[in-house]
Amino acid sequence: MEDMRYAPIGVFDSGVGGLTVAREIMRQIPNEKIIYFGDTARVPYGSKSKETIIRFSRQIVHFLKTKGVKAIVVACNTASALALETLQPEMDIPVIGVVTPGALVAAKTTVNGKIGVIATESTIESRLYTRVIREYNPQAQVFGKACPLFCPLVEEGWLKDPVTVEVANRYLEPLLATGIDTLVMGCTHYPLLRGTLRQIMGEKVTLVNPAYETARELKILLEENGIDNDGLRPGTEKMHQFYVSDAANKFRQFANTILPFGVDTTQLVHIEDY
Amino acid sequence: MEDMRYAPIGVFDSGVGGLTVAREIMRQIPNEKIIYFGDTARVPYGSKSKETIIRFSRQIVHFLKTKGVKAIVVACNTASALALETLQPEMDIPVIGVVTPGALVAAKTTVNGKIGVIATESTIESRLYTRVIREYNPQAQVFGKACPLFCPLVEEGWLKDPVTVEVANRYLEPLLATGIDTLVMGCTHYPLLRGTLRQIMGEKVTLVNPAYETARELKILLEENGIDNDGLRPGTEKMHQFYVSDAANKFRQFANTILPFGVDTTQLVHIEDY
Repeated sequence: MEDMRYAPIGVFDSGVGGLTVAREIMRQIPNEKIIYFGDTARVPYGSKSKETIIRFSRQIVHFLKTKGVKAIVVACNTASALALETLQPEMDIPVIGVVTPGALVAAKTTVNGKIGVIATESTIESRLYTRVIREYNPQAQVFGKACPLFCPLVEEGWLKDPVTVEVANRYLEPLLATGIDTLVMGCTHYPLLRGTLRQIMGEKVTLVNPAYETARELKILLEENGIDNDGLRPGTEKMHQFYVSDAANKFRQFANTILPFGVDTTQLVHIEDY
Repeated sequence: MEDMRYAPIGVFDSGVGGLTVAREIMRQIPNEKIIYFGDTARVPYGSKSKETIIRFSRQIVHFLKTKGVKAIVVACNTASALALETLQPEMDIPVIGVVTPGALVAAKTTVNGKIGVIATESTIESRLYTRVIREYNPQAQVFGKACPLFCPLVEEGWLKDPVTVEVANRYLEPLLATGIDTLVMGCTHYPLLRGTLRQIMGEKVTLVNPAYETARELKILLEENGIDNDGLRPGTEKMHQFYVSDAANKFRQFANTILPFGVDTTQLVHIEDY
């Protein structure tokens, strides 16, 4: 167990979005080393079937295990919603997703019991946010809305563009009409649209960022298991490592806009071999 | 060779877009049977690297060969632009893409020598349209513009939505400014935006649809090789077959909006095994 303490954390996503989760982990638990995997060859997951997302996620988890990780964070809402329940029993290390931490905070935060969830089509169809919120708060009403254009708009860099504002207005209108007081940003790209979402939803609606809650839960989990890195054995190797399934420059460029340091080298992995 | 005549044509795309090419083949060469493969598990290809697109395309071509096809149409601009040159020498049957037919017609159509190409990022970066257009018309000026939001907008069904018009205005503005008289719709989704593109570009700009030109070229190719189906031996099996790598309902729904008949059954293929 003593060695486990200094092992890295595996973090994966369908692409670049999970870097917002990695960033939160780096902020809240700076002693931990991260092995990040972005499935850039098969991105996005948001409109794909449960079977496919489980198959892809299982390959990635196998890859991360070969890197000796002590815990895995599924830093993708879609994979958390569709694959986590299947993969958890197959693993001998802790595996957590972003949906449960986000859902629990939303359930605790709401005052009027009305919660909105915006996410990919597959995440909304899975109804996992609704299920977890209701476990904690059975009276809660949960209103889900798929926002398939948000990811492409973020990746185009149009974060505050009038087009993005118009698309967001269109998607959020039915949620506004329900009178929700809490909105879960249920896709890792969406916190990058926080300004636009805030503008439309107004100051009274609490925006929940599952990335933040997940990093908090990870910290507690590591401490409870006695595998948190105490920083007493400084590593000689590079702090964090980044792997991708497609070596497009885009990953590095996007990573450099999200992370507080430059990602110089990303290593290519043939993920379907795992 | 006599048997080859009655073999099917393999048609593939990263997802649903290639159905617009399949539809043109069905219209222009109605005797031919089509085996369609859509790589819905790994869609889209448009922002991915050459190496990845070659690997994926090679697997698909191997799969189609197991179905006994007599020729293959790469019904995806990105795969045509990045993988076709590599795959053609590996094959013992004719393989054609959509880029060359579209580029040749654009080169012949232009009067003022100024041609615009709209396509995915990877297609534009490959510069294949420019190269083929210049081979035929060395004086031509080719202006490429990547339009990454067009595919998600089409898949959202917002074909004539004000948001789509605004996005199209933004993308097309620099092309309009160059004074082009010909515009190649260099991604199989884009002909579905023809109304919006026409409205912005005006009546004087010729819109080139590579799907149409590709079906024409295929017809000539089959006849020249003596492998065109003369319709004299009616097949007992279903006329066309559809395969996908992810069984999302979305494929069937989208297919039913594009094709003149219902696509009842799509069969799932684990494409990474090929």
